[in-house]
Amino acid sequence: MIFVTRTEHFSASHRLFNPEWTDEENARVFDKCSNPNGHGHNYVLDVTIAGEIDPSTGYVIDLKILKEIVLTSVIDKLDHRNLNTDVDFLRGTIPTAENLAVAIWNELSPRIPSGKLYRVALRETVNNIVEYLGPK
Amino acid sequence: MIFVTRTEHFSASHRLFNPEWTDEENARVFDKCSNPNGHGHNYVLDVTIAGEIDPSTGYVIDLKILKEIVLTSVIDKLDHRNLNTDVDFLRGTIPTAENLAVAIWNELSPRIPSGKLYRVALRETVNNIVEYLGPK
Amino acid sequence: MIFVTRTEHFSASHRLFNPEWTDEENARVFDKCSNPNGHGHNYVLDVTIAGEIDPSTGYVIDLKILKEIVLTSVIDKLDHRNLNTDVDFLRGTIPTAENLAVAIWNELSPRIPSGKLYRVALRETVNNIVEYLGPK
Amino acid sequence: MIFVTRTEHFSASHRLFNPEWTDEENARVFDKCSNPNGHGHNYVLDVTIAGEIDPSTGYVIDLKILKEIVLTSVIDKLDHRNLNTDVDFLRGTIPTAENLAVAIWNELSPRIPSGKLYRVALRETVNNIVEYLGPK
Amino acid sequence: MIFVTRTEHFSASHRLFNPEWTDEENARVFDKCSNPNGHGHNYVLDVTIAGEIDPSTGYVIDLKILKEIVLTSVIDKLDHRNLNTDVDFLRGTIPTAENLAVAIWNELSPRIPSGKLYRVALRETVNNIVEYLGPK
Amino acid sequence: MIFVTRTEHFSASHRLFNPEWTDEENARVFDKCSNPNGHGHNYVLDVTIAGEIDPSTGYVIDLKILKEIVLTSVIDKLDHRNLNTDVDFLRGTIPTAENLAVAIWNELSPRIPSGKLYRVALRETVNNIVEYLGPK
Repeated sequence: MIFVTRTEHFSASHRLFNPEWTDEENARVFDKCSNPNGHGHNYVLDVTIAGEIDPSTGYVIDLKILKEIVLTSVIDKLDHRNLNTDVDFLRGTIPTAENLAVAIWNELSPRIPSGKLYRVALRETVNNIVEYLGPK
Repeated sequence: MIFVTRTEHFSASHRLFNPEWTDEENARVFDKCSNPNGHGHNYVLDVTIAGEIDPSTGYVIDLKILKEIVLTSVIDKLDHRNLNTDVDFLRGTIPTAENLAVAIWNELSPRIPSGKLYRVALRETVNNIVEYLGPK
Repeated sequence: MIFVTRTEHFSASHRLFNPEWTDEENARVFDKCSNPNGHGHNYVLDVTIAGEIDPSTGYVIDLKILKEIVLTSVIDKLDHRNLNTDVDFLRGTIPTAENLAVAIWNELSPRIPSGKLYRVALRETVNNIVEYLGPK
Repeated sequence: MIFVTRTEHFSASHRLFNPEWTDEENARVFDKCSNPNGHGHNYVLDVTIAGEIDPSTGYVIDLKILKEIVLTSVIDKLDHRNLNTDVDFLRGTIPTAENLAVAIWNELSPRIPSGKLYRVALRETVNNIVEYLGPK
Repeated sequence: MIFVTRTEHFSASHRLFNPEWTDEENARVFDKCSNPNGHGHNYVLDVTIAGEIDPSTGYVIDLKILKEIVLTSVIDKLDHRNLNTDVDFLRGTIPTAENLAVAIWNELSPRIPSGKLYRVALRETVNNIVEYLGPK
Repeated sequence: MIFVTRTEHFSASHRLFNPEWTDEENARVFDKCSNPNGHGHNYVLDVTIAGEIDPSTGYVIDLKILKEIVLTSVIDKLDHRNLNTDVDFLRGTIPTAENLAVAIWNELSPRIPSGKLYRVALRETVNNIVEYLGPK
């Protein structure tokens, strides 16, 4: 068993707010993250696959293939987008890093061709990171 | 003469578009940076002061004071904001990294109490950086 | 279950020595780390909380609250201090990164308001890092 | 139980190819990584030891000793080498990051004097990392 | 006048040796960098353009265009290559970082469509960087 | 003309205070940097040499030689030391990053065997850097 991680980047805007709350409640809980016109981040996404090494290639998974899956399944849909309005798989969720990591896991998990998705880590700023290891 | 640099961070959203152009022209020139609902970045700002060392302190400028000036003059106005709509000193400018660096220079330059503002560097993504050394 | 990490920094001085040993023994074991006048580091502290996502906020823990706890409980007491003489919760311990990580865990663990403290990671130099997952 | 990681670097060249395959098969699977004249990387190696803190030193393991073991057992044999031709402990293996991590584990594991080898992590590029936790 | 920098990466192998010298002379001068089977690096290339901001775009140069020029003119020819044997524009030069930076300058300089090439910086390892500002 | 930079690291403690001032004045000016028992940093030192490329080696300066000069002239005297008490070439100076950069320049400048010392850059924390280009 070995773990292989591919890192990709995307830049997106978002606003944190709960539509069931008043503006005051949103401002109190989410503070400047609830600014009505939004703000944004450069997100760093680490996707980790766990599996056995294929002796004929020395690979757990061909990273060219993993990269392609990560780009087409999630990065192309998130990069240079507004996470509140532009992304199908985020509809109805508050786009916190936590919810984003879970949504990315759900998009990627069924598409991994060898090994298994082990971890999605999402760095939102230089000081904040979220990790999700799946619904165990 | 010695150069002292203070680094600060802000997270903001923006959309690149020229209001005098059609949507098609904006899409052709700015591509995904012109996405109508915007996107965002974690910006890294380096502010460099040039000056002589004060022999009684060993400082060119007290970095606690420089930090305070950078925070109140620019970071507090940019962080967790939409650069197209929320920032007084960006009104009427396309919020590219180039225009942002010049605008930040203009905000900071008259407020530096010792030494002189030498350079504003703005990192927009891990692959892009802009530097401005003033109107020389 | 999801993991959320907050990163904070502090700068401190220390000297490694065991008061029950002779100077020669200390010099032999701790080498230059036992320099009588001390040395110092920029420490990078990663605090990881594990928990469920609160559906009303999308948060495991509000990072503004976590940051405040980390600052008041440990950073304010460690930053710009001498770890051998200035820190109550380090009295009687040799201030290695290992002992620091355990002491920081003990300070933080009872103060986490939602989720549970999962890991304290402490980077002492670009080449050395220590991680503690609690008294399991 | 606490985890201590030491980071070291080496620069090496390699070529990925399976000698049992035709040139076409190698080119199809390994693509540009199979370039006949090779290419290379700056590898970043993290070696993690797990153990109890020795109360007389505050150490799990003396990092001066761990560094010496990592340098003499693996770095000196890998740095500024061709991984296909110059390294005894890689003979007969395709020098992927996965196989390298396992081979480094096997070299280091019997030589750790206190605590136990817990993880070998190998960063091959800014976007790819491999981790091995041993034959469990 | 403003400076815009684009960062790109390539991974390559090389061997430092002067064909007019004996093996002993090469080994004495270039030491382990002269290992006959080569070694390699992950190179980080910063390309800086100096120019005026175009008021209709807010750009000195469209970074999508600069990226394309850097990729097709130099990265595609250097990435996953052997710098001693595989690169037309390096024929007859010892592939040190210094010579590489000058050769990259010469490839890029005539192809910059707006602004002027100001600096090529090439990071060869975490500890070494070379900068070239052209034949002034 | 080309610029070659070598990066080295040292960890040291210091306290900022002016012996001609009262404790109150020192506390007011230097704040927590004046803590009587000191604090410390991991310093990152960049030494830049400017010169012509020697066509027989492709080097401006052999980095093995530059590294040796930097280690023996400054790093060995600064690393794991107290900058107020342990360093001959800092006697009588307040050990700010500015004064340190100038003192390092003065130690290195006469010892550079090929090319000329162009810049000493000293990173004290992730947010602060000082650069000195000599007594021009």
